[in-house]
Amino acid sequence: MAVGLGPLPELHPVPGFELGIASAGIKRPGRKDVVVMRCAEGSTVAGVFTLNAFCAAPVILSRQRFEGPVRYLLTNTGNANAGTGEPGLLAAQRTCASLAQLTGVAETAILPFSTGVIGEPLPVEKIEAALPAALADLKPDNWAAAASGIMTTDTLPKGASRQFQHDGVTVTVTGISKGAGMIKPNMATMLGYIVTDAKVSRSVLQALLSDSANKSFNRITIDGDTSTNDCCMLVATGQAALPEITEAQGPLFEALKAAVISVSMELAQAIVRDGEGATKFVTVQVNGGATHQECLDVGYAVAHSPLIKTALFASDPNWGRILAAVGRAGVPQLNVGLIDVFLGDVCITSKGGRAATYTEEQGAAVMAQAEISIRIELDRGNCSETIWTTDLSHEYVKINAEYRT
Amino acid sequence: MAVGLGPLPELHPVPGFELGIASAGIKRPGRKDVVVMRCAEGSTVAGVFTLNAFCAAPVILSRQRFEGPVRYLLTNTGNANAGTGEPGLLAAQRTCASLAQLTGVAETAILPFSTGVIGEPLPVEKIEAALPAALADLKPDNWAAAASGIMTTDTLPKGASRQFQHDGVTVTVTGISKGAGMIKPNMATMLGYIVTDAKVSRSVLQALLSDSANKSFNRITIDGDTSTNDCCMLVATGQAALPEITEAQGPLFEALKAAVISVSMELAQAIVRDGEGATKFVTVQVNGGATHQECLDVGYAVAHSPLIKTALFASDPNWGRILAAVGRAGVPQLNVGLIDVFLGDVCITSKGGRAATYTEEQGAAVMAQAEISIRIELDRGNCSETIWTTDLSHEYVKINAEYRT
Repeated sequence: MAVGLGPLPELHPVPGFELGIASAGIKRPGRKDVVVMRCAEGSTVAGVFTLNAFCAAPVILSRQRFEGPVRYLLTNTGNANAGTGEPGLLAAQRTCASLAQLTGVAETAILPFSTGVIGEPLPVEKIEAALPAALADLKPDNWAAAASGIMTTDTLPKGASRQFQHDGVTVTVTGISKGAGMIKPNMATMLGYIVTDAKVSRSVLQALLSDSANKSFNRITIDGDTSTNDCCMLVATGQAALPEITEAQGPLFEALKAAVISVSMELAQAIVRDGEGATKFVTVQVNGGATHQECLDVGYAVAHSPLIKTALFASDPNWGRILAAVGRAGVPQLNVGLIDVFLGDVCITSKGGRAATYTEEQGAAVMAQAEISIRIELDRGNCSETIWTTDLSHEYVKINAEYRT
Repeated sequence: MAVGLGPLPELHPVPGFELGIASAGIKRPGRKDVVVMRCAEGSTVAGVFTLNAFCAAPVILSRQRFEGPVRYLLTNTGNANAGTGEPGLLAAQRTCASLAQLTGVAETAILPFSTGVIGEPLPVEKIEAALPAALADLKPDNWAAAASGIMTTDTLPKGASRQFQHDGVTVTVTGISKGAGMIKPNMATMLGYIVTDAKVSRSVLQALLSDSANKSFNRITIDGDTSTNDCCMLVATGQAALPEITEAQGPLFEALKAAVISVSMELAQAIVRDGEGATKFVTVQVNGGATHQECLDVGYAVAHSPLIKTALFASDPNWGRILAAVGRAGVPQLNVGLIDVFLGDVCITSKGGRAATYTEEQGAAVMAQAEISIRIELDRGNCSETIWTTDLSHEYVKINAEYRT
């Protein structure tokens, strides 16, 4: 049911980065569920991780290790290794130790990632058994297979790629992501990997990823449920024949930043387009706020409202529910008499009441579309924020009621 | 699909209070949709109203008027008269003025209440035309008909009644409520009316209602959507032959308080039991918090999680989703290694990880029940809070996708 999400675009290989996929049979026999990624020596790595206090064991390990030299990223699906306490941490360490032994790198140079059911013991032996096959499969043009290998309830793989020229050198930024439910990233998304062959210092790379995540992954929501396993990693292999970027300025940095943000946006929106049970792709834009936070508060009140989400599913322009959500967002001293609301280009609320020009037919025409924008003008300041979300359909209930069966 | 909600209990008439019901045909011809309530001269009235900034026109008027002498409460269903701006305010005033003219009381002695679709003009003439019939129907033993008359998507009428003896005098507390969706009251519930024949000063009555609403109506949630029209009123007719209660202490006050809280609890829980599409009645109890607010934050994170609600609907003990919700509730410096979680009497999480004694069969047995309790022990303080909620079913999506059709 993905909304406006087609087959994978061309995903350009990134010099210095290889991917290998194998099947460990964690949840279902034969399913490709283990992905190993290798980065060239000297790569820098930036990461943003879930702020959920119950973060998963692999998140704890990756967060400890990602600033040091990193050589491998090891991902499994089918089991989140979250809510598993001390045994879960030992299990994550064991899978990394096995990969370290097979490849001859330090155990701390391996970052683990898991996604799937929360609270069940990680099947370490199954993952270990699959590692040789994954290593044998390592190659630079394996992005599409890796994008499929990290999927759980996703219906389509998600990837994006950009290239730009600088001083006659081609620089590539390629990324993949997964996630369709338990999506309200807080600092990062479910799982996202973005790789470039530019050479970038760790501090600049981290700032670039944080900025980019805040404009993309941290602005999407499907059900408001922040995952225990959210991670987004940005790897710079440094293989492009260009000087190292050590400051967040200059033409090369700006070109890289534009490419990274563009890839992040496409990957983040792809997660929403493939949201569990999604039949609509919804953009909620809040303008004229006194602060960015109040724009976000209003945006999320609208984006999380089950009543608005079911109306979107029904293509019903029941705009009173939008007003109710704006009104309960907790904005201090909100003057509702200033607020305009637009559905697509149609003004539905003017100065806090039904717009004189509004007709039900106009609203119904916008709601019938698969891609819908809701724009709220608060008229009390100059801040704006945009959030992307989905509707709430029968299929969402079905998927999540039957997830473990 | 109401959970554990039977036919109305006996609703004792309250001396000094009469109710009349009529049909105005607001949404459907023949539907009883107008309720007039008359209170004896000298009655005191307390009220709590929605904090939604987009509050409805009748809320604005009732909030202005309820501290003065009040003689009539006028309720219509089928139209919320919210998001209607200045014309909505004039419409609410006109219905009150008409009732004032028919009854010879001051216009300001009439409190209007509306519930139904947001954003459509109130059909004033239809309501005016129904007033004479409603007045002709006024009688003290009309509570059951009034409980039905204020329903919208409710599947069953909701009422509760208590009597106690004081100095040989019988004191009655009777109340009715409505609401099944857009339920996350903030200071009050959708619509609730509680009446006693005790004589109570306005300030004591207001404090009693606020306290009682905070223990009941302000602790329920169905979909987290705070309505534009929430109102809960407590009327004291003063007809019981007992001294006026002017202080929040003493045996008579305590007996009245116990009765009012008991009625409020039953009415609030009845709203949850009849929640849109509800198949489960869920109690979320959070203990051991450092503050009441953090207990509420954790409780609502659990109660609003679409993933937990769909697991409840599926009777799936997918307890990892509970940990994920606790972890994202925003509690500062939360030590997850101290947290225990119980499903019914079954310990599912001990010290932050899966309890050694837990089996899937135990969890499944609890989840199969229609009434389920989730207890979270934070072990960082002495505060507790309890919230009542429902599951998220296909029926919820169906009801709200088809609400206006």
